This record gives sequence, C-alpha cells and structure tokens, in this order.
Amino acid sequence: MFQTAAKTLSVASSVSRAISVRHYCKKTTRKLRISEALLGSELGANVKVQGWVRSVRPQKTNLFFHVNDGSCLQSLQIVAGSDLDELLTFGSAVEVTGILKKSPHQKQPVELEAEQIHIIGECNPVDFPFKIKERHSLEYIRQFPHLRCRTNAFSSLLRIRSEATTAIHSYFKKNGFVQIHTPIITSNDCEGAGELFQVEPSGPDYDENENFFSVPAFLSVSGQLHLEVMSGAFSGVYTFGPTFRAENSQSRRHLAEFYMVEAEVSFTQSIEDLTKVMEDMFRSSTEHVLAHCAEDVNLFHKHVTPGHRVSLKDNNLTWAVDILNRSSQEFAFPTDWGCDLQTEHEKYLVKHCGNIPVFVTDYPYDLKPFYARDNQDSPEHTAAAVDLLVPGVGELCGGSLREERLDLLRARAGLEDTYSWYLDLRRFGSVPHGGFGLGFERYLQCILGVDNIKDVIPFPRFSHSCLL
Amino acid sequence: MFQTAAKTLSVASSVSRAISVRHYCKKTTRKLRISEALLGSELGANVKVQGWVRSVRPQKTNLFFHVNDGSCLQSLQIVAGSDLDELLTFGSAVEVTGILKKSPHQKQPVELEAEQIHIIGECNPVDFPFKIKERHSLEYIRQFPHLRCRTNAFSSLLRIRSEATTAIHSYFKKNGFVQIHTPIITSNDCEGAGELFQVEPSGPDYDENENFFSVPAFLSVSGQLHLEVMSGAFSGVYTFGPTFRAENSQSRRHLAEFYMVEAEVSFTQSIEDLTKVMEDMFRSSTEHVLAHCAEDVNLFHKHVTPGHRVSLKDNNLTWAVDILNRSSQEFAFPTDWGCDLQTEHEKYLVKHCGNIPVFVTDYPYDLKPFYARDNQDSPEHTAAAVDLLVPGVGELCGGSLREERLDLLRARAGLEDTYSWYLDLRRFGSVPHGGFGLGFERYLQCILGVDNIKDVIPFPRFSHSCLL
Repeated sequence: MFQTAAKTLSVASSVSRAISVRHYCKKTTRKLRISEALLGSELGANVKVQGWVRSVRPQKTNLFFHVNDGSCLQSLQIVAGSDLDELLTFGSAVEVTGILKKSPHQKQPVELEAEQIHIIGECNPVDFPFKIKERHSLEYIRQFPHLRCRTNAFSSLLRIRSEATTAIHSYFKKNGFVQIHTPIITSNDCEGAGELFQVEPSGPDYDENENFFSVPAFLSVSGQLHLEVMSGAFSGVYTFGPTFRAENSQSRRHLAEFYMVEAEVSFTQSIEDLTKVMEDMFRSSTEHVLAHCAEDVNLFHKHVTPGHRVSLKDNNLTWAVDILNRSSQEFAFPTDWGCDLQTEHEKYLVKHCGNIPVFVTDYPYDLKPFYARDNQDSPEHTAAAVDLLVPGVGELCGGSLREERLDLLRARAGLEDTYSWYLDLRRFGSVPHGGFGLGFERYLQCILGVDNIKDVIPFPRFSHSCLL
Repeated sequence: MFQTAAKTLSVASSVSRAISVRHYCKKTTRKLRISEALLGSELGANVKVQGWVRSVRPQKTNLFFHVNDGSCLQSLQIVAGSDLDELLTFGSAVEVTGILKKSPHQKQPVELEAEQIHIIGECNPVDFPFKIKERHSLEYIRQFPHLRCRTNAFSSLLRIRSEATTAIHSYFKKNGFVQIHTPIITSNDCEGAGELFQVEPSGPDYDENENFFSVPAFLSVSGQLHLEVMSGAFSGVYTFGPTFRAENSQSRRHLAEFYMVEAEVSFTQSIEDLTKVMEDMFRSSTEHVLAHCAEDVNLFHKHVTPGHRVSLKDNNLTWAVDILNRSSQEFAFPTDWGCDLQTEHEKYLVKHCGNIPVFVTDYPYDLKPFYARDNQDSPEHTAAAVDLLVPGVGELCGGSLREERLDLLRARAGLEDTYSWYLDLRRFGSVPHGGFGLGFERYLQCILGVDNIKDVIPFPRFSHSCLL
C-alpha cells in the first residue's frame, strides 16, 4: 500500500542547466536568504542563494546580475564570467554558489562571486508580461494576479501586508486581548443591511429545497455580534479576518471580500475608551510597519505614490463638530441633522481639519443599528457611535458603545424572535462594552497612499471579477 | 448634523446597584486585570477589578467570593462584609475596589479586601444554564454557544486557541515566511473534489441567471494554489484561515468551516524538507502553548480529558512502511496497493508505532490530485505526498511536493483550459516546491485530548447546524 523510500528530488529539474563557472566547490556551503547575505556578516564565506533574476548586465570581462528571493526588496548582485548562457534571463529561477565579498560599488554592501550557477527554471522574456528595466504601473500588473508578486512593487506590498498583520496581532496581545476566530458562515445579519452573500452546497447531489444548515446561511459582514458573546467572559477580545459584502461596486474603495480588524472592550466607560484603543492601535501598528518595512514602504512613497507620507506627529485625533453646516461649500447630499455622512462630507471634514485623521461621534440614533447605545439625549437623540475618517480613504473605522441595558434593547422591535440569544447576553451578567472595526485594506491604502484597494490585497474579489 | 459632546457612561448602568462596604476610597485606585492582581506585586495597593462572579461562599463574619475576567483561569478571591446583597450571584458582573492583601490561605497568593462593590449586571441563578459548583460536561455547555465562554473549560480553550494562533504565526515569522491572505471566495476547486459551497448574493435584487462574479464562485477548500502563486516570488509563504467543506457529516472529526494552516516552501529538495517544517512547526507551537498556557492546558488534562498528556519526547516521527499488509488485524476497507488510507488504517498505523505521530509518504500517483509530484517510479508509480497521522485524531497534516515540470503537468488532461494560469507558474521561473496543510482544530484536539471537534472552535458549523 505504501512505499517507504522518499525520493530525493534533484534541484536541477528536467529544464535546468548546470553551468560550472569555476571547477571548484567548498564543502561548507551554507544556504542563505538574500536578506541574510546582504547583512554582510558572512563576508568570505562560501554560500548558496536561490531566487529569481531581476536584472542582467553583461560587461566586457564579467556579467553582473541580481537575484531576489522575496526576503527583502533589495537583490543580491552576482558577479560571474562573461561566457554565461542565454537562459539567464529576467524572471528565471537560479541557484548560485560562491564567495560573499565586499562590493567595490556603493549601491550594495555585498556581492556574490559565483562559482556555480544552476538555472532551475527558465523564463522566456518574450512571453513574460513583465519586462526588464521597465517600471510597470500597479494597474498594468493587476492584469496578472498569478504573476504580479514577481514585481518589486507587489512583493513589497505583500511583505508590508504580512508585517502589518503581525503588528496588529502584537498590539492586541500586548494589551491582553484574546483573539477569537469569529465564524465566516453565519445565520445572522449583523448590520441589518441587505448586501449579503448566501451559501449553499453546489453540485447535483444537493437538494435545493433544503438548506444545508437547516436555516439560510450567509457570509459574515462582521464578527461583532460573536465578539459580543465573548465580551461576557473576557475584558478584551478581537478578531482579524475576511468579511463580505455583495455590493455591486467597482469602486477603488470597495471589495466583495476584505479584511477587518474588530475589537470589543468590556467595562467601557465612554466613547473615549474606544477611541483611545483605535488611536493606540493605529499608531502602534503604523510605527511597527514603518520600523520593520522601511525599505518597502519607501518604495511606495518614492515611486508608486510619490509625495505620500505618514505623519504620525500630525495625528492629533480631532473631535469633529458640526463643521459641515458652517461650511460655505455646496454638497450634493444634504447635511441636515438626521442624514448620514456621505463620502463628500467625510472628505471635507478631513480636509477642514488639516488632512489628518478625524473622529466623528454621536450619530443620530435612528441611523444606527439596533445594538448602538442610546445616548438618551433630547432633542437630538443620538447613539454613542464613532467613525474614524482619514485622508484619501474616508471612513477607516466605525464603532460604538453597545446597548447593554436589557429594557432598552427589548424596546427595539423584533429582537425577541430573532435575537433572543443576544438578549440573553444582557440577561446574565451584562456589562457596558463597546467595539469597533477597522478596514484592513483601507488602512494599508492610508499608510501607503495607494489609490486603488485592489492593489493592497493578494487576490481582489469584486462584482464580475473572481480571478484564480 | 453631529453633536460633539461625548456622553460619559456611568459604569453603574440602570440595573446596577452600588454597595458601599466601607465609606472610604483612596484616590490612587489602579484598575488591574485579575492576572495582574494575582502576580502579587501590588500588595497593599488600592486597586479596582472588574469581572464575573465564579463562586460565593458566605461565612460567619465575612463573605468570600471569586471574580474572573478571562485574563487567566484563576479567579481573585474577594473578602467582603457578610451583609451583602442577594444580587451577588454566580455569573453576575461586578466591579470591586479595595486593598490587595497576602492571602492567609494556601490556595491563592493574594486576595482583595473589598471597600466598594458595584453589581454591574445581575444574573438570575434560576435562569442561568450553568450552576454554581457544578462541573458541566463539554457536551452540556455546547448547547449554549452564546454562553459557554463563561465556563472555566471553554474560556481556557479560547485562551489556548488564541495562544496557539500566536505560536503558529511566531514560528513562521521566525523562519522568514511571509503571511499571505489567500482568498475565501474562489473560482477554482483545489482538490478536484465535489464537496463545495457555492456563493451568490441573497435578496430580491439579485438576478439568479447571472453570477455575481460572472463565473460560479465557491468557498475555498484550500489556499494551496494561491500560495503556489506566491512560491514564484518568495522562498516561504503561509496562510492561516478558514476553509470549507460541504460534507454532510456530523462526525466528531469534521466541520463545514474549519481553520487550516498551510505553508508552501520553494526550492525544496525532497519530501524530508517538508516533514522537517511540519515537525518543527508542531514541536515549536506545542512547546509555546505548554509554556504559555500551562494552567489552562492542565485543566483539560486533569478534569476534562483525564489521562491525556502531550509527550514531546515521544515524537520520534516515524516513516511508515507497508505495516498494514503485514498486520494480522482484519480491516473493513481493503489494504491493497492503490486503495486510499481509511480512518481504521490510520488508527492502526499510529497504534502500531506506539501511539506517536507518524508520517506516511509516497502515495499511489493516481489517488493524488493533479499538482502532486510524480515520483516516476515503476511499477508502483507513486506521488511525493505525505500525511501526518496522530493519536486520537488521525490525519492531522497532508502535503506533497508539487509538480514543477511543465511537460509533466501538461500531460494531465484538462489543465490547459481551466488552469492555464497554473501552467504559467511553471512557464516562468518555475522552482521545485512543496507544501502542506494542518487542520488547526485537529491540532487542538490532539494536544488537549478533546474528543469532539465542536469543542475546540468558538462557533462550530456543520450540516443542519449554524447557531448564531
């Protein structure tokens, strides 16, 4: 039934070509990542690197090429004899063994004097959609979702995204939050809005008259209600994962599948308790990303989105007042009390405050979902809700205190039938609590200055597009 | 349009009752988590704790009760006057201010001498499904998905799950892997199997004759193919998120929505390269969890699943041979070469090896999906695939080297049409690579000895059940 011998796979596959540069190979060859090699601490050592060719520059006596393995933005310069094969092209995969030396050039601290070069995987430069020495736009590379990670810009983006994820987890861990994997498939609709995806098995065996889960099931639009469950046992919980909206939108700010960071804080005293967490998280994550991905972030600020800078100093988070009504600007949407904020209003508020992040609090009660806490103020009648607006992006976070008082929740119609479990949370050891959600892609857009949300997620999904 | 004043929420909500134990309150009251208070470093300090009552024990002159806030398994003992309110019940939420003192009892190092007690949220002990001093079974508490986090067992589980998540991210970060958020909604079917959920918008506005994404879209059964995209630019990538199977199963090992850790390693030399990563990750994560959640893990090993221990020393990961055919045991399913492993076989293999984790490699080529690397051995004809079997759970991980040779991949029918992008990955700078997936819930079952998979995930989803 089984065979025990594990076959050894030769790195040189059927398409590979081994080219001996010098007929010599030390026994103590260490495999290094490019980022390790570039540190310069292994000068004189015999090392092996593996990666993809990013440039080829033939000169009289030598051939120079650069190899990148995704461990950092910078590539390692390889110095080889000039008699190299034409298969050593932009995009091809190679393995190079040689001696790490101090580079005579200023651009890089270290270079690798090649002793042996294997071409592991060829890359036909005519067919490959990315061309050597060309700076392709984000829009151009977006056409190739299976290949765009091979460009400098998108590989930088992916490293930043990974590091920002680490930063957010670190922030919550450091502050005693427990991570909760809130479900993707859910039988409730957190927002009360319509834009839901429904989920049922596909295929001929499935009986269409019967729900797989016995009830209609949807993709989650928010993990909030599930986090609120946990707010009855933990003083702080968070979730970080995909959420879904079936919006028929092709805008540069919307996706059908996007990532949200959501947190819920028990024993909250006020909306300021929440904004403090929002601000701390924003600040701490951004500092982490800038510190750990300086080179990658710089690429965006320099080449991709010139002129954009994250100015942490300017983040004097401002409590917005009724600026719009005092404005002389004309808006397409009404600015009357009781109307919701539109993108044009958000933009104006951010601009008015000097293009810095702005908190807006205390929205009309009737505009907010059932769980938002009633401020019981008259005549305005507001809910203790807050949005964080940021330059270029608009709404980055939305949050609220949640109605923890059973009698007030009960007064809202329909809850007894569909949300009796939610009322139970208030029946047994209810505590004042509140939370917020942050759109992770919008956060990346904000700190990198990337205009289109499709350029900050590995595989964007939106109406009429689900590539790969 | 907005109102600026943020309302201050009194912690004492409408249902709360303030009970002054002593008419005295120091100004320098510090809010502490229970885990902080229990450290004992704040003896003599005036502190405030908030949480839920876990026990109440009236004595002649004093009343003792325990408060837990989810920061750790242990609760803080509160010493109060005996004239306390009947609202101080099991499950009620309280805020207690007082002086931290060394406890005269051995059971806890520290106790809080209460000066002021607020009952923030009542809890009617008759209606509350969990009873004071009763040890409810995991099966019993599973009936209350919105409340079970308030039991010791499930709150321990959630802390362990959160910490295990941290451990897995740490392992990959430390080893230079980039985290990729592979998509949930996808237009391809990684496994070639049938058990898929399909996704379309719900609601009356949706035209049923038109796919939202223009193509049929499904919930991901694996992020592997998307990780393989990234294997063309990074030497190591991983993803950790929910995956889905529309299996009509109520078993204690299957869920419709479960979490998978998947990794893909470029420039792999052999199946041992993979098993090394699998073993390292298993070992490193388990050590991390045992070190950081000793108390919580102990609860499972002591009360919930007595007798279960994780013996890292015994994890001599074994390469299995054709044990089954030499066995005298009779199996319900055939053990002929060419038949797939069944649960009974997995169990036998693990038992045969002394109830330790076992790797099984080199499966019949025809049983494996198109991407598995052909070992080109005859007459057996195997693929370079591997499974990790563990005691009690069965298959924990599955992985393989991926076919990186364009000509061999092409020879498999149908790929040119549906997976031309996948072939492109081999056309341009292809490298030998391989990867694996680990079922995260099964991992938790394995290290905790929990029999039913529904007890290691916050909100289990399976056929006919999607609560909350």
